[in-house]
Amino acid sequence: MAVNDIKNYMDRCADLVERDLAAAFECGDSDIASLYDAMRYSTLGGGKRIRAFLTLEFCRMFGGDEDSALAFASALEMVHAFSLIHDDLPCMDDDDMRRGKPSCHIKYGEAHALIAGDALIMLAFSHAASAVTDAQTALYAVRVISERAGARGMCGGQAMDMYAESTRVSYEYLCKLQSLKTGALIEAAVMLGCISAGVKDKRMQDAVRYASCIGRAFQIIDDILDIEGDEAILGKHIGSDAESEKTTFVTELGLEGARAEAARLTDEAVACVSGYSGAENLIALAKWLYTRKN
Amino acid sequence: MAVNDIKNYMDRCADLVERDLAAAFECGDSDIASLYDAMRYSTLGGGKRIRAFLTLEFCRMFGGDEDSALAFASALEMVHAFSLIHDDLPCMDDDDMRRGKPSCHIKYGEAHALIAGDALIMLAFSHAASAVTDAQTALYAVRVISERAGARGMCGGQAMDMYAESTRVSYEYLCKLQSLKTGALIEAAVMLGCISAGVKDKRMQDAVRYASCIGRAFQIIDDILDIEGDEAILGKHIGSDAESEKTTFVTELGLEGARAEAARLTDEAVACVSGYSGAENLIALAKWLYTRKN
Repeated sequence: MAVNDIKNYMDRCADLVERDLAAAFECGDSDIASLYDAMRYSTLGGGKRIRAFLTLEFCRMFGGDEDSALAFASALEMVHAFSLIHDDLPCMDDDDMRRGKPSCHIKYGEAHALIAGDALIMLAFSHAASAVTDAQTALYAVRVISERAGARGMCGGQAMDMYAESTRVSYEYLCKLQSLKTGALIEAAVMLGCISAGVKDKRMQDAVRYASCIGRAFQIIDDILDIEGDEAILGKHIGSDAESEKTTFVTELGLEGARAEAARLTDEAVACVSGYSGAENLIALAKWLYTRKN
Repeated sequence: MAVNDIKNYMDRCADLVERDLAAAFECGDSDIASLYDAMRYSTLGGGKRIRAFLTLEFCRMFGGDEDSALAFASALEMVHAFSLIHDDLPCMDDDDMRRGKPSCHIKYGEAHALIAGDALIMLAFSHAASAVTDAQTALYAVRVISERAGARGMCGGQAMDMYAESTRVSYEYLCKLQSLKTGALIEAAVMLGCISAGVKDKRMQDAVRYASCIGRAFQIIDDILDIEGDEAILGKHIGSDAESEKTTFVTELGLEGARAEAARLTDEAVACVSGYSGAENLIALAKWLYTRKN
């Protein structure tokens, strides 16, 4: 599959998620309209929707129903959006740009950005819990999202990242940090796809391994782009890691070593799913992520 | 029931919740130990545990099983603790004291406090979703918590409160703000008790009405204590509302009017439950909240 084809296919999937998200943000109460504005601003109309794509695509590949997967996919995008809002706050990464526009706290103020992030988490769980599926499946999804996004997942990774901002850390620490901060939610995405399709056996193990490989490769490419990316294409400033003398996959492996490791992980990801019929899009995604410029 | 009796009874209930919470915070991973410390610091060993008490007590009164109610009660206390951490942050109320000790961000820094709050939300949902009960009941609990704590509940109230910090608002706005910011979680507490007992009929309506009355009365007493409370007993500074010229129940009703309204609401709360056998503790709680000094 050509790179353009997978991007077109992902765009169609992103449209589906965008419509589902937009409907979830309908408000109609003027007293809380500005809060909804901030939630909408940071969730709609941007991002690659990789997590949502993974949920929908694993569900499809394993013969599941798209409707329940869609609710989980949107919930995960809300969790992802919350994490970006809080990550950008002055007390965290203090980033004033996100996806080529002002960060949520620049646009709506710190207090509203903080609350919008909190409210997005709550909406994510309402949304997942209201999925058109049986109670056991929805409850399983709630557990996967809350565990993978919590202290032993994404939040734990953010805490480790704060430590790594000010301290030189080991390669082992960096790998664990990344697995939690970025990897955990990508794993959640594929798990939600499997759960939607009622799959819990070796297929889920392969899916999680695929997620783990593309998650790590994604972060390595991020570190490379922070050095040689194009700000206009990326929609954010580059060079922030070097400025802060942060430990990254590039400082640890060198530029060429990092590229080679990303390539190895991409191959491993492809191997995890290539035995399944209908894996073309997942294979194409892994390859596209490796060559991406933003 | 004498005031001392209800306080002793509530203390026993608080011990139960404290043990359940402490077990949920067991970590064993040194890389995220400081995050767990911050979560533990702001959740354990403090607070009246009114929400948890309401869940357990409504469950008991309606003949439910304490074990599933306990998980929901603890989850709600985690959500309450997160809201206090985020509320105390510099970009929100900027409070450096909470429950007689330094606020979470004073003790652990802003970034860790922010993440600890986020991680507490996630843990709350993991905890509720893992309750020893059927999937439908647990899922209903997840929906109640996420909706009552979200943009149309507590988070919405916080956003309205930020607006009211800088603007003179109407009495109607103040009432709505309070219903969302404080009332919604108290309503969630009684609903979770009912759900644990499998009760969804008029009994739940009475429970919600009771919650709505004590929630409003609680806020009115809070506003009164901010004027004539004892800082040593309260464990926090007083006079902050007056300093910021905020609209409160006292500015709108006067001190005597506010006291009368709190008394009327307490009577109404008592009337909501007095027809049920075993309502003594709930009646005593309503009366105690009216006379409380902290």
